[in-house]
Amino acid sequence: MTTAAPYPFLKGHGTENDFVLLPDVDGTVHGALAADRVRALCDRRAGIGGDGVLRVIRTAAIEDGRGQDAEWFMDYRNSDGSLSEMCGNGIRVFGRYLAREGLVDPSGPLPIATRAGVKTLTFADGAVDGEITVDMGTPKVLEETEVAVVGDGVERSWPAVHVDMGNPHAVAFLREGEELADVGPLLDPPVHDEDVYPDGVNVEFVVRRSRAHVAMRVHERGSGETRSCGTGACAVMVAAALADGADRGTPYLIDLPGGTLTITWTADDRVLMSGPAVLVAEGTTSL
Amino acid sequence: MTTAAPYPFLKGHGTENDFVLLPDVDGTVHGALAADRVRALCDRRAGIGGDGVLRVIRTAAIEDGRGQDAEWFMDYRNSDGSLSEMCGNGIRVFGRYLAREGLVDPSGPLPIATRAGVKTLTFADGAVDGEITVDMGTPKVLEETEVAVVGDGVERSWPAVHVDMGNPHAVAFLREGEELADVGPLLDPPVHDEDVYPDGVNVEFVVRRSRAHVAMRVHERGSGETRSCGTGACAVMVAAALADGADRGTPYLIDLPGGTLTITWTADDRVLMSGPAVLVAEGTTSL
Repeated sequence: MTTAAPYPFLKGHGTENDFVLLPDVDGTVHGALAADRVRALCDRRAGIGGDGVLRVIRTAAIEDGRGQDAEWFMDYRNSDGSLSEMCGNGIRVFGRYLAREGLVDPSGPLPIATRAGVKTLTFADGAVDGEITVDMGTPKVLEETEVAVVGDGVERSWPAVHVDMGNPHAVAFLREGEELADVGPLLDPPVHDEDVYPDGVNVEFVVRRSRAHVAMRVHERGSGETRSCGTGACAVMVAAALADGADRGTPYLIDLPGGTLTITWTADDRVLMSGPAVLVAEGTTSL
Repeated sequence: MTTAAPYPFLKGHGTENDFVLLPDVDGTVHGALAADRVRALCDRRAGIGGDGVLRVIRTAAIEDGRGQDAEWFMDYRNSDGSLSEMCGNGIRVFGRYLAREGLVDPSGPLPIATRAGVKTLTFADGAVDGEITVDMGTPKVLEETEVAVVGDGVERSWPAVHVDMGNPHAVAFLREGEELADVGPLLDPPVHDEDVYPDGVNVEFVVRRSRAHVAMRVHERGSGETRSCGTGACAVMVAAALADGADRGTPYLIDLPGGTLTITWTADDRVLMSGPAVLVAEGTTSL
């Protein structure tokens, strides 16, 4: 059994990227938030389970928030206990919690401090339970490259576009007639150009569904195939819009295994990602 | 978002076999408990996550409890929503909840009704938080057989003992010098004799640690490799005790990936399994 005094938690997800939320508005519940507590919470069998922890804390109450012009700080930790900077799915869940608790006003833009700086959320129709849009910043479209997958001893390759969304992506469009399942199980990182991606790469495989509507799978470096990747969906949208010659401001639907995101590349070169954020449970734990 | 009124839940595990508990003592919260609610609760990304659901209900309040001489009924569902009969790890977690809530007296034997009949629990030292022992019934030791694993195109086989604990097991002792990791990833069901096991089989691989102490891995039919299997640990203990010529009543330590169980085969031919049961979180959900 455990010895900690019970403390509050919630569980939530955005397109099935899931998180344990820890309300700790003044930093008095968890102090420095130990890495072993994060690992215990994220353990999917012995704990609650999640891809990471989102501590809800006032910017003034955490050293990493110093100098940021936003009342709330997303203290995001990876499931292995390490610090993390930003997560496009997680920040929507974070915003949903603040709005639902009445800690923020959903009718206007909501700045959130993160270790990657201040990010701004907006709530559809200004509603507490509306879809949430996050400004994911400016993409960098870089060189053409190639990725490959090995299955049954055969290597198959596709041309790919190098898109940087603060982290590196390789976006590969499948050929006419190929479906996402044809890529195979993606147990290993896809083969990629080590000179282009010296620190590894997130690889997206994409098929077209209709005009401004695509479906994708993603292999995240360090995590394997996942059910959703916010920056990956943004990179896919940018590559698709360029390939299509689409007008800036055209919203794209991006289907991921865990749900659908709507992504728009604006005239002023920002990528706006809109999607669901769901709180599924709340209570107390002593983990 | 969801529409159900919030209802209570807990999450707990026994040697990392994990469950969502639903208190519903009079059957008024969930009625027939829909399969799609069970699936939503057990979803590890979009829900709370678990290997199954344990509804806590009075025997008098559920049709499947009819005629059973026990106040409480373990309404156990698999994560796919189907009904299930009995789970040696789950019933300890079930008993822990009842004792912690003061719904039962941990100082004496505690009968629990299940779809496999009444099972009896005892709490170590009669304590609410003591290790819990469950009578797993009488084993049937059947024929010698063989199991095999295919890796890198090579098939390796081991002799195995067919033990029936209400469900079928094949217990294979590794050879001198072989370790559990050497068996490989166990992604597919091990090869087994279809005449001996027409409905499939749970396969255990075992190494000796010291006198009356072994370690095991298990591939469960329908689930793949798991971190714990109560009936599998019992089958392993029985096979080891027979191989060792151990006196009845000798407690064996069985190390599983998710923790350690203590198992004793009694003079009156019952298998008693003792182990931990941990409640890690509680709260409400609308799933």
